[in-house]
Amino acid sequence: MMRQSKTLIPTLKETPADAEAASHKWLLRAGFIRQNISGVYTFLPLGKKVLNKIEAIVREEMDAIGANETFMPALQSAELWKETERWDAMGDELIRLKDRHKRDFVLGPTHEEIATSLIRDAVRSYKQLPLTIYQIQTKFRDERRPRFGLLRGREFIMKDAYSFHTSEESLNESYQLMFDAYTRIFKRLGLNFRPVIADAGAMGGKDTHEFMALADIGEDTIAFSTDSDYAANIEMAEVLDTYEFSTEPQQPLTKVDTPGQKTMQEVADFLNQDISQGMKSLLFKADDDFVLVVTRGDHEVNEIKLKHYLKAKTVALVEEEETIKLMNVGFGSIGPIGVPEGIRVVYDNAVKALSNATCGANEDGVHYINVNPTRDLIDPEYADIRFIQEGDPSPDGKGTIKFAEGIEIGQVFKLGKFYAEKLGATYLNQQGKSEVLTMGCYGIGVSRTLAAIVEQYHDDRGITWPVEIAPYQVHLLVLNNKPEQLELADQLYQQLTDAGFDVLYDDRNERAGVKFADSDLIGIPYRITVGKKASEGIVECKVRRTNEQEERHQSELISYLTEVLG
Amino acid sequence: MMRQSKTLIPTLKETPADAEAASHKWLLRAGFIRQNISGVYTFLPLGKKVLNKIEAIVREEMDAIGANETFMPALQSAELWKETERWDAMGDELIRLKDRHKRDFVLGPTHEEIATSLIRDAVRSYKQLPLTIYQIQTKFRDERRPRFGLLRGREFIMKDAYSFHTSEESLNESYQLMFDAYTRIFKRLGLNFRPVIADAGAMGGKDTHEFMALADIGEDTIAFSTDSDYAANIEMAEVLDTYEFSTEPQQPLTKVDTPGQKTMQEVADFLNQDISQGMKSLLFKADDDFVLVVTRGDHEVNEIKLKHYLKAKTVALVEEEETIKLMNVGFGSIGPIGVPEGIRVVYDNAVKALSNATCGANEDGVHYINVNPTRDLIDPEYADIRFIQEGDPSPDGKGTIKFAEGIEIGQVFKLGKFYAEKLGATYLNQQGKSEVLTMGCYGIGVSRTLAAIVEQYHDDRGITWPVEIAPYQVHLLVLNNKPEQLELADQLYQQLTDAGFDVLYDDRNERAGVKFADSDLIGIPYRITVGKKASEGIVECKVRRTNEQEERHQSELISYLTEVLG
Repeated sequence: MMRQSKTLIPTLKETPADAEAASHKWLLRAGFIRQNISGVYTFLPLGKKVLNKIEAIVREEMDAIGANETFMPALQSAELWKETERWDAMGDELIRLKDRHKRDFVLGPTHEEIATSLIRDAVRSYKQLPLTIYQIQTKFRDERRPRFGLLRGREFIMKDAYSFHTSEESLNESYQLMFDAYTRIFKRLGLNFRPVIADAGAMGGKDTHEFMALADIGEDTIAFSTDSDYAANIEMAEVLDTYEFSTEPQQPLTKVDTPGQKTMQEVADFLNQDISQGMKSLLFKADDDFVLVVTRGDHEVNEIKLKHYLKAKTVALVEEEETIKLMNVGFGSIGPIGVPEGIRVVYDNAVKALSNATCGANEDGVHYINVNPTRDLIDPEYADIRFIQEGDPSPDGKGTIKFAEGIEIGQVFKLGKFYAEKLGATYLNQQGKSEVLTMGCYGIGVSRTLAAIVEQYHDDRGITWPVEIAPYQVHLLVLNNKPEQLELADQLYQQLTDAGFDVLYDDRNERAGVKFADSDLIGIPYRITVGKKASEGIVECKVRRTNEQEERHQSELISYLTEVLG
Repeated sequence: MMRQSKTLIPTLKETPADAEAASHKWLLRAGFIRQNISGVYTFLPLGKKVLNKIEAIVREEMDAIGANETFMPALQSAELWKETERWDAMGDELIRLKDRHKRDFVLGPTHEEIATSLIRDAVRSYKQLPLTIYQIQTKFRDERRPRFGLLRGREFIMKDAYSFHTSEESLNESYQLMFDAYTRIFKRLGLNFRPVIADAGAMGGKDTHEFMALADIGEDTIAFSTDSDYAANIEMAEVLDTYEFSTEPQQPLTKVDTPGQKTMQEVADFLNQDISQGMKSLLFKADDDFVLVVTRGDHEVNEIKLKHYLKAKTVALVEEEETIKLMNVGFGSIGPIGVPEGIRVVYDNAVKALSNATCGANEDGVHYINVNPTRDLIDPEYADIRFIQEGDPSPDGKGTIKFAEGIEIGQVFKLGKFYAEKLGATYLNQQGKSEVLTMGCYGIGVSRTLAAIVEQYHDDRGITWPVEIAPYQVHLLVLNNKPEQLELADQLYQQLTDAGFDVLYDDRNERAGVKFADSDLIGIPYRITVGKKASEGIVECKVRRTNEQEERHQSELISYLTEVLG
């Protein structure tokens, strides 16, 4: 309960110029947050109330799976970060500082080092394992370009958890528990989200899922199935090798002149073909080797898949100048037939099913037509190395793929032994032998999740909070200072509060228009307005999200609110 | 509820060498905290549980007085700190850092700058005032010598609050509300504490009280009344001018030789007098002036009182060499009679009531005896400039003064306009005229309070938590793996949990002695042990603090615990 005259809700009429994301705009305009410096925000009273509700749900679900809440420090010794080599690996994103004795410290962006060193020192025996610890805490990351308000800041709130195990099987169990808890958390928060298969990246991890809230502002693209739960980051989505072979008769392999035709589209147009009849050839350097990668003309090479397939540390496109040096021909006319010795050729699975296709002939301005892979390619090496596309079959065999944009709000990660090995975190097994710990780590961007909710819950007048995390349940407005209105409103404020509803009471000496506009901005789910009919005991009830309005007698209010709020 | 085998309570048999304070020792040994780096700690599961309980009480009492919870950033722009001049004033204690663009930042030790700039930008009108905001947050201070565990760290948790007003009267009201809320908080936490009058220091403030938890490790001395609520930091305790004048006849002023007698005690012994018959003279430099300060021989000059009385920025004792230059005589024989021109003499009130007293005669090895101030001192300037002593009357007229050592756990502070003026924080008054805000600030050292509780609640076997903030209410122990014991213990764990008790269940495969010792260390208020008589359904109940033990039948447990836990 709170009187609006006694709290701080500095709403704004205008949208600040730099607010690109909807959540940024509405959280600022509705007075939930204020920027202090670029990428650093204060949570004002309304913002902090929502944050507390999100944190309570996260805490509840973590406790329910037996995770132990802890609180680890922000200030971390640089030594630990040097031992895991993240001191260098994190580059400029890692905030560093020195104390009065000129010793180096890190402001924690995550706590793998701290958590691992803690367990290394506190856990001796397999009997104490498995063990999961978590915390809700402020993190720091020096983003090159902080933007989108709470979505990408330099100081933000995370729930991070770390699990410690004697085996992969034990890790798998905790991973699944955490995965299910995350699913419950984001459901309770009302989010439209997908857990997606993601890339484990460089830190020696294995399986990982990202939890993505669907939103237009999303910086990641998700490939999801129309008919199942399948979802993956498009970088990770497998493409099934279920291409249908053509029954068209094979024509003889023929060279044709394609003077000046450089791109796939130009060649296709010139030959009056569909682009999907072409074979696209790109030359990559994978670590120290050169690889010609061939996909169907309408497909795109997925460098992450390629890297994984080649087991390479880095892959990069070769510049045209170097390509000419190696293949005696430029980008427009390279192709898999007649490749110089020493260049490996890798074909995407889709190429296998082509018939009478077109590819560069490794002569300037010349292409082959009627390439039939089964006939014309020598010992071809096929793999899944392209990006999935909308309309492709879902990798789980159910339905077809669609794309959506998403914001990453959580991640679960099988770390394996990377950190434990670096930091010497061991335990004694049942035979009294020292073994390295196996670990998982799990994160939820708490302040980011708050923003993601607003991305999904707003309209053109402001925020439309889901009930469970709205800053208040009921917004009580009194339209002017007439005694009968004030008296009824004061009375209702008391009654509803006594009945256990959490009420924000707009008792300010402001015009009705200002109060309505602020109420829409703030987005409390149920609004009760005491106005002209106060003397009859009649008030107006409005549902913020649907805009439904109806008049009710004051005597009905408690039963009405009990019904809608449960 | 928690099984001890599933959580992390790394108890220690030995006391770590650097643990001087009781709280530091027991929190480490009982597995509540671990040090990461000097002055920086991790709260382990038990420590975090207690912290959460303290925070919940603080939050409840802050909300109850209408304070608005916010969450301000740790990362602060150096600009604001330069505007208030604290960038320099805080010296090495302020943790500074640079971001990737080489801009200066501060890690907040407190949030006056942030809070004031927030309100400056968000509040326009007197209609929005008064307003109080608070937060519970991690703070950073680069202590020169971190020690005593959580009592003096470099990263710690504070509740800080800031109030904003249009007048002194309004500030006084909020100050009183906050004072009362702090009193309720510390009472609920079970602390033996005193709010004491304290020194407002340099930052332009006025009234201030410190809340001191009584503890032997305390670094501050409190003067409190035996018969009333009066308490003050000894630096601030007023000494009443109620000295009784002697009725002894005045003897003639006489010079006597006191060869080689330097200290007050030596002179008194030499003349066979009590030290309280002597007048102690000390030469101070107050800003640019010299002041001879005279107290009774058994009293001590209070430099803070002297500074306030002289309205000086600094006061410092003058070295002997310079004293000789100014007064032609060394420390042992200086005195107020015959002081060189230009040296002001200030007497403590107690001197007025002396009769036939002794003082230095400003000749080497010579003293005056039979000094009678009313007769022998010319226009003497009397003031309260000494430290209060045990046995002095209480300044409020009730009872006498005793001393105690204390730990500062909270402070309430009337800041006035200092920060608002520096940062240009104004509002429009009822006449539409711009005025500078008046402010108060209020802090509770949350992690420090946790340690202060342990200072007051421990014995020689471990911690003895008060019920309201104990990590669990009940500690259930099963002594061995016999089926009848395990079965009964498992059953009780379920029953007690279902009945709403918060139970830690020691289900570990450890010896009985280890379990008992750990249980005493951890200090959960009620212990239930399932042992030999399990087959009869009989368990042992023990009260941790009093050590009372009794056997109970399992059927009585819920009513027993309901009775003791309320």
